[in-house]
Amino acid sequence: MNRSAPARAPHIACFDLEGVLVPEIWIGVAQTTGIDELRLTTRDVADYSQLMRHRLRVLDEHKIGINTIRAVIADLGVLPGAREFLDWARQAFEVVILSDTFYDFAAPLMRQLDWPTLFAHQLVIDDAGMIRDFRLRMPNQKQAAVQAFQSLNFTVLAAGDSYNDTDMLLAADHGFLYQPSAQVMADFPNLPVVDDLISLKAALASVAGVDAD
Amino acid sequence: MNRSAPARAPHIACFDLEGVLVPEIWIGVAQTTGIDELRLTTRDVADYSQLMRHRLRVLDEHKIGINTIRAVIADLGVLPGAREFLDWARQAFEVVILSDTFYDFAAPLMRQLDWPTLFAHQLVIDDAGMIRDFRLRMPNQKQAAVQAFQSLNFTVLAAGDSYNDTDMLLAADHGFLYQPSAQVMADFPNLPVVDDLISLKAALASVAGVDAD
Repeated sequence: MNRSAPARAPHIACFDLEGVLVPEIWIGVAQTTGIDELRLTTRDVADYSQLMRHRLRVLDEHKIGINTIRAVIADLGVLPGAREFLDWARQAFEVVILSDTFYDFAAPLMRQLDWPTLFAHQLVIDDAGMIRDFRLRMPNQKQAAVQAFQSLNFTVLAAGDSYNDTDMLLAADHGFLYQPSAQVMADFPNLPVVDDLISLKAALASVAGVDAD
Repeated sequence: MNRSAPARAPHIACFDLEGVLVPEIWIGVAQTTGIDELRLTTRDVADYSQLMRHRLRVLDEHKIGINTIRAVIADLGVLPGAREFLDWARQAFEVVILSDTFYDFAAPLMRQLDWPTLFAHQLVIDDAGMIRDFRLRMPNQKQAAVQAFQSLNFTVLAAGDSYNDTDMLLAADHGFLYQPSAQVMADFPNLPVVDDLISLKAALASVAGVDAD
């Protein structure tokens, strides 16, 4: 221990949501509705706007509205250990969830995670409950948020599993690929990989110099 | 209601901590220790570094260390209604507490507020528990955070009571002076004033177009 060290370094931990803390929402929708075309995720498709246009087209063809999707999401639950992991992280660091999902979807999951701060996007929903469009708050919002936090003199930790996370992970002071697909891992061989929340906790604690309990 | 409106606008609400959600920490320390020189706050002194140097000099003269101050803080509690107000705000918006206090002080209060995201500063504490120095994460961090959130395409709401809040309030899309001193109010006549958390909730809900319950 240094003689005169700050008790706690100012770290912000930025976490992807789906695949790290909660299940993939759209795979849940595909399973419940039986529509296999909704199984594609950011783990498969690098262009998120292209992926979202595909999803909205499929929903429209099958006349599936926001209420059906919200019902699926309410039943999804968070991943095992996610709440405990996040409770630890919120005491060890400041935490911001950086997700390319939509506030309209995320609320029931945020409730189960005790309302962490979330940076996400918005849907455009008509009076009949059909999803008409989506509004990305900005392009590449995850990387931009990391850089904004660094400009405020925070050290940034980050973890995510998909193509839409890699710019965030590369921009962060310490970025970790979380359970990536073989293809994502092959495309970004220099990013360290962690396999579960226990390992992620240990990795974050190690680089930040805090206790993992 | 618009035919095709996003269900929820991307708003971040930035709140000052002391005087809005928790009591003034240093007034608590002054009361417990009986040292009147510690009663000055940002409501009285515009230059925060000058104020902190004064406080650390007084603590050193009286041999008061971090453990005494932490014991005072643990007993302070949060202000009446603060937890309920923040629970509402975290569901209605994203919330970040912008405080010129120190992470070393804030933890027991953050626990009582259920660990909202906090942007604050750091103390330098020696092995004997004496506070040797302080490290502001950056000058004017509150205003810089508001501008960073705006650069990420959030609409920023803000509330605070003191001189160290006014740049934040002026930079925000909607800034509110919360229970300001007569002098702060006179110096910033164009900032709207709210008198309690109920009124703040109503004011935030109104400008953001969300329900106040």
